Amino acid sequence: MPLDKPAADLITLDDIERTRAGLPDVVRRTPILPLARDSAEVGNEALFLKCENLQVTGAYKVRAAFAVMNALTPEQRAKGLVLASSGNFAQAFAYAGALTGTPIVIVMLDRASPYKVEATRGYGAEVVFCGNDALSRQPTVEKIGRERGMTAIDTWEERPIAMGHGSIGLEIVEDMPLVETVLVPVSSGGVAAGIAAAVKLRRPDVRVVGVQPENANAAYVSMQRGEPTTINHWDSIADGLSAVRPGAFPFRHLQTFMDEIVLVSERDIAVAFRTLLFRSKILAEPAGAVAAAAFLSGRVPQDRRTVAAVTGGNVTEAMVAQMLEMAAED
Amino acid sequence: MPLDKPAADLITLDDIERTRAGLPDVVRRTPILPLARDSAEVGNEALFLKCENLQVTGAYKVRAAFAVMNALTPEQRAKGLVLASSGNFAQAFAYAGALTGTPIVIVMLDRASPYKVEATRGYGAEVVFCGNDALSRQPTVEKIGRERGMTAIDTWEERPIAMGHGSIGLEIVEDMPLVETVLVPVSSGGVAAGIAAAVKLRRPDVRVVGVQPENANAAYVSMQRGEPTTINHWDSIADGLSAVRPGAFPFRHLQTFMDEIVLVSERDIAVAFRTLLFRSKILAEPAGAVAAAAFLSGRVPQDRRTVAAVTGGNVTEAMVAQMLEMAAED
Repeated sequence: MPLDKPAADLITLDDIERTRAGLPDVVRRTPILPLARDSAEVGNEALFLKCENLQVTGAYKVRAAFAVMNALTPEQRAKGLVLASSGNFAQAFAYAGALTGTPIVIVMLDRASPYKVEATRGYGAEVVFCGNDALSRQPTVEKIGRERGMTAIDTWEERPIAMGHGSIGLEIVEDMPLVETVLVPVSSGGVAAGIAAAVKLRRPDVRVVGVQPENANAAYVSMQRGEPTTINHWDSIADGLSAVRPGAFPFRHLQTFMDEIVLVSERDIAVAFRTLLFRSKILAEPAGAVAAAAFLSGRVPQDRRTVAAVTGGNVTEAMVAQMLEMAAED
Repeated sequence: MPLDKPAADLITLDDIERTRAGLPDVVRRTPILPLARDSAEVGNEALFLKCENLQVTGAYKVRAAFAVMNALTPEQRAKGLVLASSGNFAQAFAYAGALTGTPIVIVMLDRASPYKVEATRGYGAEVVFCGNDALSRQPTVEKIGRERGMTAIDTWEERPIAMGHGSIGLEIVEDMPLVETVLVPVSSGGVAAGIAAAVKLRRPDVRVVGVQPENANAAYVSMQRGEPTTINHWDSIADGLSAVRPGAFPFRHLQTFMDEIVLVSERDIAVAFRTLLFRSKILAEPAGAVAAAAFLSGRVPQDRRTVAAVTGGNVTEAMVAQMLEMAAED
């Protein structure tokens, strides 16, 4: 490491376009679907969904995983890659590793969902558990890197991650040239950084708005304070947005390219989940419904043509039941 | 009536291509998504889903509705169209009527789901109830046609219906040239006729297989007997496949263009519904999961590249819960 230029430099349009050109064909150009809340809105939709839940592996992160693979030297590829993830990055890197012949080790907490462990192993990656202290994950990653000669990465801070995610932003402005606002969920900030950079560098007139749950608002607080800030309370159904502070590297992109961050309630997320399922016929994970929730709950202007990034759809039956129950409450 | 040539003639490739050329832009070229049952299958999928549940109005029938609109004379359009439907055709025609300025009357049974009545009215169509005798529907349609000077159609027997549905078959063979088998659900036979004709006329080497629930097998029985036959027992969760006999006109296409019809169990349908939802992240109605169920339950060869038509996604929360419960049973 580093895989690319020093992290001091913000990613550029050239970075994003070059990275996209290197993505393999298995990375899908996902559809953008209109969402009509009722019959009268059909044909006059203002909200459109960029369906990264229909991406291979069920989430956008495979774009970044291949971007990282392409940044490795042949020697680094042969020795393999180690990273921490208990979420969609685990499956994305496991899959990219299988396709590129790169050994992958994923460090997970002991309490990681057996479903995600199984899916990650299913792609052929090795899973190493590190206890239940979240702070022990990155040190474990670096220890394995040293011991096995593997490239150890921090998915929050690598340039190719944001560059890979930027491809989503390019697709949005290319496939929906009339877009006026782009909504994107924010956690550590990687996907938000990539999409915001791509959209603003190509189309400075388009508004880019980040969305966080009210009780998972680290980037919102950080934007107000002007620096990455750790929140001491986190509580949201959107388990994919688990960061209690934004990454330093993506945060600088949010400061540069993002117009604002708005907050949504837990119920807003559940109602959006239900609307996406029954009106647009797509399954989102809670984090994947958060951006659309900002529009559907009226937190952003209703008269602007808006694309919301639906970032993933990896969710259990129990979670589906829980979301529908939350949405039904008054 | 008739809207087109006498029904004696089977539809031709030229009919289908001409009809497709007349469809408005609001009719989406829906995506074809691979379905991997587990991580190991990702990238090596044999089953692909033609996602007509992502079509505008949530089902394929809008293709046929616009095909019928385009077959009307300006005078017929001005006076309007009347037809019977308690399902997706109601919304499809209501929507197509709204877009083309054609008054639409839909005849429904008194027991039609309030959800579907509401959605149909939402597009601006008039709903007329005719009691609860299914046999009273078509006479009511013809009576309204006479009284109001509207064009009365029988959606089972019109040529433009099958011609419109044929556009799905064209998209399948164009977007997935390596396809070897196409699976399509069969009820009265309209969509099956259109898809089978389009696929076989363009690509005679591709196998076209119809799929029916074991207890909704009118076309299966009819194919064995060589003529449209009424079954005296119907019982399936796939409420969209409610025909107790195939239509005479589409049936002749099934005889000409379809290789065989296979049957699936109720549990096969529920398991397929769950697999589509959690693996491919799309919501199907039970009838929309039937074609995929034939592959997923092993009723057709597993080593041929197969496209299953997912015909619709209009389903209630209660139905989702029921399907997941059925899928969980052993």
